[in-house]
This record gives sequence, C-alpha cells and structure tokens, in this order.
Amino acid sequence: MTALEPRFSDYLAEINAALSDALTRFGAAKNRSCGSDAVLEAMRYAIENGGKRIRPILTLVFCELCGESAQTALPFACAAEMVHSYSLIHDDLPCMDDDDMRRGKPAVHIQFGEAMAVLAGDALLTLAFELLLGADAPPERRVTAGQILANASGFCGMIAGQAMDMQNEGEKADLETLEATDARKTGALIGAACDLGCIAAGASDAQRGAALAFARDLGLAFQIQDDILDVTADSATLGKPAGSDWAQDKSTYVSLLGLSDSRAQVQTLTARAKQSLAVFGQNSAFLCALADALCTRTN
Amino acid sequence: MTALEPRFSDYLAEINAALSDALTRFGAAKNRSCGSDAVLEAMRYAIENGGKRIRPILTLVFCELCGESAQTALPFACAAEMVHSYSLIHDDLPCMDDDDMRRGKPAVHIQFGEAMAVLAGDALLTLAFELLLGADAPPERRVTAGQILANASGFCGMIAGQAMDMQNEGEKADLETLEATDARKTGALIGAACDLGCIAAGASDAQRGAALAFARDLGLAFQIQDDILDVTADSATLGKPAGSDWAQDKSTYVSLLGLSDSRAQVQTLTARAKQSLAVFGQNSAFLCALADALCTRTN
Repeated sequence: MTALEPRFSDYLAEINAALSDALTRFGAAKNRSCGSDAVLEAMRYAIENGGKRIRPILTLVFCELCGESAQTALPFACAAEMVHSYSLIHDDLPCMDDDDMRRGKPAVHIQFGEAMAVLAGDALLTLAFELLLGADAPPERRVTAGQILANASGFCGMIAGQAMDMQNEGEKADLETLEATDARKTGALIGAACDLGCIAAGASDAQRGAALAFARDLGLAFQIQDDILDVTADSATLGKPAGSDWAQDKSTYVSLLGLSDSRAQVQTLTARAKQSLAVFGQNSAFLCALADALCTRTN
Repeated sequence: MTALEPRFSDYLAEINAALSDALTRFGAAKNRSCGSDAVLEAMRYAIENGGKRIRPILTLVFCELCGESAQTALPFACAAEMVHSYSLIHDDLPCMDDDDMRRGKPAVHIQFGEAMAVLAGDALLTLAFELLLGADAPPERRVTAGQILANASGFCGMIAGQAMDMQNEGEKADLETLEATDARKTGALIGAACDLGCIAAGASDAQRGAALAFARDLGLAFQIQDDILDVTADSATLGKPAGSDWAQDKSTYVSLLGLSDSRAQVQTLTARAKQSLAVFGQNSAFLCALADALCTRTN
C-alpha cells in the first residue's frame, strides 16, 4: 500500500503497540498472576498474527476526519480489532468452518487446542468491552461505543452472519441471501469500526451517516474482492488455500455474477464509497486511497 | 426456599420476564429479521432452562439494600445471568468439560449442535453488554458496571478459572489451588453480581466492600456445598450425574477436607458472609436467609 505511506505504517504501529500493551496491562492489572497464562498466550498469538488492521485503522481515520486526534479513538479501535480477532478464532474451529490455517500460520485451535481456542476467543471478546469502557472519553461516548460494538457483533450482526453463512453451505444461496449474509458477517463490524471513530470525536449525525454509507459499500466491495482473489490468487499469496470456497461448492459473488461483472461491481462500489466521503472535504484523500488499495489488493 | 417466599418468587418472576423480554426486544430491534432465528432459539433454550437465578437475585437485593428499587438494577442483573448462561454453554462443550446434560435437559450442543452452542454462547456474552449499557442509569454507572462485569468474566476472572479447572484435572490440585480456581471460576461473577447491584444504586465504597466480602465467603461456601452434593445427592435431584467429580478423579473440597470438615467449613463461611452484612442493618434479613438456604440446599 505504497501510496498510503508513511501514514498507513504509522497507524499500524500505533495499533499493534496498543493491542500488545492492552494484553500486558490487563493481564497484570491486579499485581498478581491472573491465573491464565495459557489463555493469555493464545490471545496474544491470535492478536499478533499480522492482520491488516483495516478495522482499527478505519476507526482512527474517521476520528481524525471528525476533528479529534487518532489517539482519542485508540481504545475503541483496539476493541474493534479484538472482536474481529475473536470471531476468526471461533470461525476456524472444527465445528464451524474447520480451517487449520490462518494467515499462513496454524489456527489457534491447532496451535493451542480447541478448549483454549474457545476460551481465548471468549476472553478477547470480553476484553474488547473492558478496554473500550476504560477509554479516556466522556462516559456517554463510551456507553454509545459499547452499544454500537455489541449490536454489530451480536446475534443480529456478525454472529447472525456466521450462522447464515454456515446455513448457506451446500444450499447455493442467491445474490440477495449472499449480500444479506455478508452485510452481517463482515459489513456490520466494518460499519461499527467507522462509527466508533465518529463517536470518539463526538461527530454529527451527518458525519456518522456518511461513515456508515462508506462502510456499507466498502464492506461489500471488500467481500467481492475476497471472492475474486479466492479464484485468481495462489495459496502462498493468500496465506490460506486458494479456491477453498469453490471446493466447498458454496455460492460466491464470482459464481453468481461471473469474474468480469464481479470486478465491475467492486469498481462501482468503491467509487460510491468514496463519494460518501464528500462531507469531509479534502481531508478524505487518505481514506479514498485506502479504499482503492483495499479493492485492488492481491491478498 | 420457603422461608424466603413470596419475595424470592417475585424476584425470580421479574428476572425471568426481563430475560425473555430482552431476547425478544433485541432480536426484533431493527424491525426486520435479524437473520439468526437459529441462534436466538439456542440462546432462549439456554436462558430459559430453569436456573436458580442466584446471581441476578443478588444484584437486585444489593440494589435495594443500597437504597434503590430492584427495578433499577434489572438490566444489570440480567446481564450477569446472561454471562453465567454463556459460560455454562461453552463449559459443557465436548472440547471443554464434555457434559451432555444440564439441569436435567440436553446441553445446548446436544440439542442444537456444537457450532450453534459456540455462537449462542458468544451471542449471550455480547448481549449482556448491550443490555447493561442500555440500562436506564447514569452513563458513569453503566460504564463502571460494564467494566466490573468484563473484569470478573474475563481472562483474569471466570475464563482463567475455567482454564485452571481444566488444568487441575488429573493433577490432584491442593486446597490453595482449588480455592484460587474457584475464586475465579465462580467467585468472580458472584462478586460482580453483588457489586452491580451496589453500582446501580450509587452505593458507597463501604457498602461495595461489604457486598464483595459477603460474595467471597458465600461463593466459596456455595462451591463446597456443590462438592458435598456431588457425593451425597442422587442424580435425579441434581439434574446431572452424581459423583461425576469423583469419577473424573478430580480434587474436590470433600476429597481434600473430608465430608465432615467440608460441612463445617460451609457453616463457618456462611456465618461470616452474614456478618459482612451488618453495615446494611435489619434490611439484610432476606439476604441472610438466602445465604442459609443456599448453603443447606439439596440440589
């Protein structure tokens, strides 16, 4: 993502440091062993696995677009990433998607066993709320942020998406079902990440609306690009087996729309996402570049 | 628990109605299908399985002891019970304690499958925070309540306890290890439930301290009584196989202290728990009766 440097790397470094710090700080919070070194180790393995940190970066950028420093939104950003990380751990479990590899490394349940994977996921979800609620922000904003995160990741959001995704397997879902699934499975948390940045900055309703519109289009474009890469990239680039969705005989945007129309759709959605940012004026250049980078990415 | 009637039944009815209402309300929050009827069904099955509701009742009682109506603390009380319920679902999973039965009914993963059990647990944990943060209480109190709940149920609290408990299996834990495990596995959430009631009422530090001291002794007494019942009650009364801890060759208070000393310890702890309530004066009579009932219970 060279067009985004050095700003992208700065965000990334800030987020990685804050995530690592949160695990250390809360683990030692009571000046005594917290009793669960094994759980902490699995949490750290999951968190420090080299993710792209798209969600927390969106939180920081929207906070800045709405007039506050990125630092203000850092605990909210880390909370969003912890929720994302927990969802990957649980989704990879044998009883769920049964994925042994995650970003080129053994999944948490392969590395630490299934019980520890369930517990580490539970613990990251719980810590997300503890971290967010301990942010240096007015209590009203912390309450709103916690509600947004819970709603997006709960049984009408991300969890519903995962349930629907598993139900779709072998059922040859149509386009409407696929979009409804992805809006919950990945879209809801991406939207929440953008909204959390707005909330941290005390944004207006117009700003929050623009952020959510941006997130909706970007989230779908991101998902379609995922499906495109699943058939066009090789496994080494992806860090997971290429063609795995096809192998499972699952509906994808590519299987429903074809490769060419899928690519066109990514273009259209990305353009519309960028248009939503007009309310933020010239300041949105970085975010436009980020949207472009995400939708032309190769892994 | 006849000595406690009709007050106990009133609390129970209020909590059961509020729990059921929360699932309905949040499930329909957006005036459209939330997409996960299957997850909601599993959540409802887990929540409506006839639990004793000890934790949420403690929340309501402490709120009243600190000068506010029980109604004020109802969302906090339900949040504590949802966290308890989620932990039972995940603890019962095959990769964890592998229990097929819970309170005389098939465990969630037996009834709905493992994937749905993981998701329903995740969803109840998430909903607990959404419910708590949406309470009709000042934002500062909601933030504090959320932090208390997250801390007690996180990787230095309840989750640590579950990890330690699994580690203890086949290791013949000593008394100190057993107490440290239970302080986290069950004690932390019981303490949080009492504290949440205090927070809902804007209690003083002295009141919160008394509530936590009460919870600490009651929690341990409760756990020892559990171990006593495991060897003295029959399976039909317990709703789970009697003698299961002995069968697994696990250390218990009864195996370490003997049955007679275990019973004496329950008496001592219960007496001390009741003494902690002195700060609340005559108003604590119900809570003293509840402590007595819990520690002489037969299931």
